[in-house]
Amino acid sequence: MSELRKDPVTGRWVIISTERRKRPGDFRLESVQIAPDASCPFCEGHEQMTPKELLAYGRNGTGPDTAGWTLRVVPNQFPVLRVEGALERQAEGLFDKMNGIGAHEVIIESPRHEGTLATLGDEAVEQVLRAAAERVQDLKRDQRFRYMIIFKNHGAAAGASLDHSHTQLIALPIVPREVRDEVDGARSHFQTKERCVFCDILRQELGDGGRLIAENGDVVALAPYASRFPFETWLLPRRHQALFEDSPRHELASLARLLGDILRRMNQALRMPPYNLLIHSAPVGEPAGDYYHWHVEIIPKLTKIAGFEWATGFYLNPTSPEEAAQVLRDIRL
Amino acid sequence: MSELRKDPVTGRWVIISTERRKRPGDFRLESVQIAPDASCPFCEGHEQMTPKELLAYGRNGTGPDTAGWTLRVVPNQFPVLRVEGALERQAEGLFDKMNGIGAHEVIIESPRHEGTLATLGDEAVEQVLRAAAERVQDLKRDQRFRYMIIFKNHGAAAGASLDHSHTQLIALPIVPREVRDEVDGARSHFQTKERCVFCDILRQELGDGGRLIAENGDVVALAPYASRFPFETWLLPRRHQALFEDSPRHELASLARLLGDILRRMNQALRMPPYNLLIHSAPVGEPAGDYYHWHVEIIPKLTKIAGFEWATGFYLNPTSPEEAAQVLRDIRL
Repeated sequence: MSELRKDPVTGRWVIISTERRKRPGDFRLESVQIAPDASCPFCEGHEQMTPKELLAYGRNGTGPDTAGWTLRVVPNQFPVLRVEGALERQAEGLFDKMNGIGAHEVIIESPRHEGTLATLGDEAVEQVLRAAAERVQDLKRDQRFRYMIIFKNHGAAAGASLDHSHTQLIALPIVPREVRDEVDGARSHFQTKERCVFCDILRQELGDGGRLIAENGDVVALAPYASRFPFETWLLPRRHQALFEDSPRHELASLARLLGDILRRMNQALRMPPYNLLIHSAPVGEPAGDYYHWHVEIIPKLTKIAGFEWATGFYLNPTSPEEAAQVLRDIRL
Repeated sequence: MSELRKDPVTGRWVIISTERRKRPGDFRLESVQIAPDASCPFCEGHEQMTPKELLAYGRNGTGPDTAGWTLRVVPNQFPVLRVEGALERQAEGLFDKMNGIGAHEVIIESPRHEGTLATLGDEAVEQVLRAAAERVQDLKRDQRFRYMIIFKNHGAAAGASLDHSHTQLIALPIVPREVRDEVDGARSHFQTKERCVFCDILRQELGDGGRLIAENGDVVALAPYASRFPFETWLLPRRHQALFEDSPRHELASLARLLGDILRRMNQALRMPPYNLLIHSAPVGEPAGDYYHWHVEIIPKLTKIAGFEWATGFYLNPTSPEEAAQVLRDIRL
């Protein structure tokens, strides 16, 4: 029988559907294959094809926007929001609007075209996390920004427009709704129980074990109880901490190791799936230290979102998190 | 410059992106083509391939589950929720769950395999709306159900698993989050202003005209101010009314006419796009009469949802509703 499950943070319900149960081999997905591209703007030697770099790692005497780097951060050439200008809030009769002030940056994860977070190695993944944290720290000084979202689209089916491995960062002048719901849910749990809901989840999952996938000294990977999507995976730091960007270096290194491990498991179990990766951190300037707990969410793109989901915000998941966790746990790399 | 716009009902923000502006010809979409299927369970003559019918229109002396009908409603063969059993609510440590009680029905819109709501004609579309309303009225008598969602997935890219034109109805034991947000937003507007927010929207849009697409005596089609998706279209009855299923026959007839018209405009402007269609109505047993206003939402499937949208619930729309409305308004059928 199907089950309705409630996410303890946001209160969002999902249906874990047994009638429509799907195992890893049942998904018709678009496996990600990286095609060679001689005119890729992110490849080493093509630095002039991007806007001027904001940050680079690995330079050893080479100048900005030239070859000789291991990671680059550049403004997005087609930004969804722009840094220039003052934030103007306006009414249009009944409606409210703002001009599109924000920032949109791209972390180019490797000088090579072919690598992915699953294959670049722990050090490269750690670099990406460090660069993301460093850019967030810098953008936080801009008083117009209320939230910084770090995300990755891997594969065209997950929304990537370029194959070369990259992560995006968008600074927003408002706190978006999904974040608001999560932060409000975490605050409300704390107000009732004086405990962080994510710490509670970690404690229960580490005790129960059925939804655990892998772990190391600092970070735990699990399939969330109310997974919206098949093989949805969360990586949570064991230590309570609201802000991703404040993580000490050893935690980012541990996260990098576990993240590479999880992505390799997914590649093997699900045949190189497209995916979205999101870093959830507390909003800028909210005193969320007690109740919010930063984490990473990975959503493999295995199913199509249809009318039911749009209409209801109520997800239909054909693979139970217990089954997904077991499949990923049992992978031998 | 891009614009951030706020939906006046839910408070959801969207980005209308001018940097990434897309016109109708720019979308790489999967045009819907209906493939012949000799073993389609929804075709006339194949009545034994579905569960027993719950409702049929157009029978003229023919028995149930035989040929000779214009519309049939049957239980879904692979229901996401099941009618049988008592609703049990349980805790699992920190987590909450219910067993999967509900109903999942399919409205088979035509005995013929090839038709769509755009081509079947006004009378057939009206039949679909009447059947949906009739089934909701029946399901409302079941005290376990809190919300009935009526939706349509047109085309595989929009989540349809069968080509033969059909609409689905799911009765849920909870009020889903998107509905909750909309109903709460509408109530809060009413509490402040003593007016229905949808009536306010209609008044402003009918005055302004820039986002109007088409209208008739009972129903208005418009591109919503804070459209999440390119060519998102809402059809609102002019008369304030919370419940779709209580609509008088002439309103359903007017809606059917305008709906067919809008879908034909979309087919011409967007090359037979896949789409989702959703009927938003007030939850069962809530006194929403003053503040909620039922309506239809059509979401053509033109873009991919990527990490940014998942992480934030904040949609990035490359086509302004003003441009979308103008394109659809200018179509000569």
